Amino acid sequence: MTQASFDPQAFRAALGTFTTGVTIITTRSADGAPVGITANSFNSVSLNPPLVLWSLAKTARSLPVFEEGLHWNVHVLSAAQEALSGSFAAQGTDKFAGLALDPGISSAPLLPGCTARFQCRTAFRYDGGDHVIFVGEVLAYDRSELPPLVYQAGQYAIAARKPRQEVRLGATPPPECSYTEDLLGYLLGRAHYQLLFALRQLLASHALDEPAFFILSTLSVRDRLSLDELNAIIGYTGFVVSPPQLAALEAQRFIAREQDGSVQRFVLTADGREASLRQIAHAKAVEEDLADVLGAGDVMALKLLLKRLIASTDPGLPDLWAPVNEPATMA
Amino acid sequence: MTQASFDPQAFRAALGTFTTGVTIITTRSADGAPVGITANSFNSVSLNPPLVLWSLAKTARSLPVFEEGLHWNVHVLSAAQEALSGSFAAQGTDKFAGLALDPGISSAPLLPGCTARFQCRTAFRYDGGDHVIFVGEVLAYDRSELPPLVYQAGQYAIAARKPRQEVRLGATPPPECSYTEDLLGYLLGRAHYQLLFALRQLLASHALDEPAFFILSTLSVRDRLSLDELNAIIGYTGFVVSPPQLAALEAQRFIAREQDGSVQRFVLTADGREASLRQIAHAKAVEEDLADVLGAGDVMALKLLLKRLIASTDPGLPDLWAPVNEPATMA
Repeated sequence: MTQASFDPQAFRAALGTFTTGVTIITTRSADGAPVGITANSFNSVSLNPPLVLWSLAKTARSLPVFEEGLHWNVHVLSAAQEALSGSFAAQGTDKFAGLALDPGISSAPLLPGCTARFQCRTAFRYDGGDHVIFVGEVLAYDRSELPPLVYQAGQYAIAARKPRQEVRLGATPPPECSYTEDLLGYLLGRAHYQLLFALRQLLASHALDEPAFFILSTLSVRDRLSLDELNAIIGYTGFVVSPPQLAALEAQRFIAREQDGSVQRFVLTADGREASLRQIAHAKAVEEDLADVLGAGDVMALKLLLKRLIASTDPGLPDLWAPVNEPATMA
Repeated sequence: MTQASFDPQAFRAALGTFTTGVTIITTRSADGAPVGITANSFNSVSLNPPLVLWSLAKTARSLPVFEEGLHWNVHVLSAAQEALSGSFAAQGTDKFAGLALDPGISSAPLLPGCTARFQCRTAFRYDGGDHVIFVGEVLAYDRSELPPLVYQAGQYAIAARKPRQEVRLGATPPPECSYTEDLLGYLLGRAHYQLLFALRQLLASHALDEPAFFILSTLSVRDRLSLDELNAIIGYTGFVVSPPQLAALEAQRFIAREQDGSVQRFVLTADGREASLRQIAHAKAVEEDLADVLGAGDVMALKLLLKRLIASTDPGLPDLWAPVNEPATMA
C-alpha cells in the first residue's frame, strides 16, 4: 500500500483519516476588520504554560493579519455550527455579517454557541513547510456542554462515544451460534421494543394497542385519511389497519368518520388528539431521559445514523409530513 | 464561563472537547529497542513538503530516544485497535511483545491493522512549553479502509458521519406538529420495521409471521425452552407466544415438543433450524448491504449506540446467550 509518489490528493486523503474537531480561529486586523478562518489543524501542546497550536497556509490571505496581531481566539465548534464552519471556510464573503459577538479579553472576535473557546496570544511562530505553525499561550478559556462537531475523511460527523467498559448485553454467544446480539436487525428490534415497552403501559391505560397508537400518531400529523391512505402509511410495519379496528377507536371516541363523496375519512376527536399528545409527550420524555444517560451528542449521532439507514432502506413510503395542499404520493 | 485560574484538570477537560483520532508513534533506540507511545496530538501541517507534527512531554521517558533518532512512524489507529492504544499509553510493559511488525523504510517499528501510517524523518524540533513539538517529513505512507478510532472528552468513540446533504426523510413538519420524524422512538420504529419489511417476504415464503420468527430465532440460540421461558424472552416485544401458535409451528414441522417431567419443552427440527439459518443469513446480507451504503464505521457506531440504548433501557430481560449450564434468570 506504500505510495512511492506523493499524489497531493491521495496524501491529503490519508491525512484526512485522522479525525479532528473543527475550529474557527479569529483575529482582528490593525484597521479593525474582523478576520476568521476554519481550521482543523488545532491541537493542544502544553499544560504549563498553557499552549495550543494550529497552522495556516503561507498562501492564506489572512496570514499577514495573524502575523501582525498577537491575539487570536480558537473556537471549538459545536455540532450545531456546521453552517458556520462552512461559511468561515469559504472565501470572499463577509463572514461576520449578522453574527453576535461575546466580549473577550482582546479585540479578537469571540463567537457564541461553541463547545469550547481559547483566547490566546501568539507565543511562537514556527516554519512548517507550506504552512506557518502558530503556538499560542491560552490567556482565558471556557467551555459548554454542547456536543462538538467532528470532521473525518472530508465529512462532518458526530462522535458515538464508547464507555470505558465494553457494552455487552449478555454473555458472549458461542462461536457456532449464527444468531448473535451483534446483528443489526436484532439490535434495532430490541431497541424499538424496549422503548415501546415503556410506552405500552400508557397505551394500556388508554386501552390502546400498538396499531391503534400508529393510527392515532398518523392522524395527529395528517388528519382526514381514508383506510387505504392509512394503510399506505402504516403498512410497512406489517400491521394492516382494518375496518373493525377503526370502528373500535370510534367507539372509544378517539376518532370520528367523515363522508367525503364515496370515501370515508377519519379524523382525531379532541379526546384522540389529547391521547396522542400524551403519548408523544411520553416518547419525548423517554428520549430526554436517554439523552441524560447516553449524552446529547450520542443521541444526535444515533438519530443521524437511523435517518441514514431509513433513507437507504426506504421501500418508497409516502411522506407523512408533506404539506397537505400537495397531496402525498400514496404507494 | 471564563476561567480566571488554570486548574490543570479543567483546562485539560476543555482541550479534550476537541475531538481527535488516536495514534501510536514508534521509533527504535540506538541499542535496537523498539519504543512506542500513544498520542492524540498528531496533526497534518504541510502538503509540499509533506509534513506532520505531534508533541511529546519533556518529562516522557521516551523523549531522549525520539530526540536521538531521526526516524519515527505515526500509526492512525483503527477502531479495532482500542486495546493497543491502551497498552501503548501505559508504562513499564513490554508493549511490543507478541506484536507482528511490517517491514518499513527505516528501523522504526511499523504496526499492522491501522487506518493509515506515515513513515517520517524529523524535520524540525520546536519548543512547546512542557512539550517538544516534532515536525516530521513524511517519506512514505499508506492507508486502509478500516474505520478509525476516535477520542473525545477522555473517551474512545466512533464517528457517525454526516453526508454533505442534510438527511431528511420527507418534508419539514409544520412547527405546531408535536409528532415529528425527529423523535427517536419514531426513527427506531421506522428503522426496525423497514429492515423487517425486507425480511418479511422471506418469512412469507415459509408461511411465517413476525412472532414465529422470534420463536425460531430464540430457539436457534437456546433450544428446549418451555412456553413460559419463551415468553420471558420474547414478552418485551408485546407478542405473547400462545399454545396454538406453537402447535402451528409444530404442524409446519419447524419445531417439535419434548416432555420434561410436567413441562413441555420446544426444540427446533432440522427444517426449523434450516429456516432460521436462512432468515439469519438474510438479516446478515441486509446488514452487509447497509455497511456498503453507510460505511463500516457508521454501522459500527450505530450498533454501539443501540447497545448503549438497550443496556440503559433494559427492563430486566433474561440473557439469551448465557451459557446453558448456568440457567438464565427468567423474569
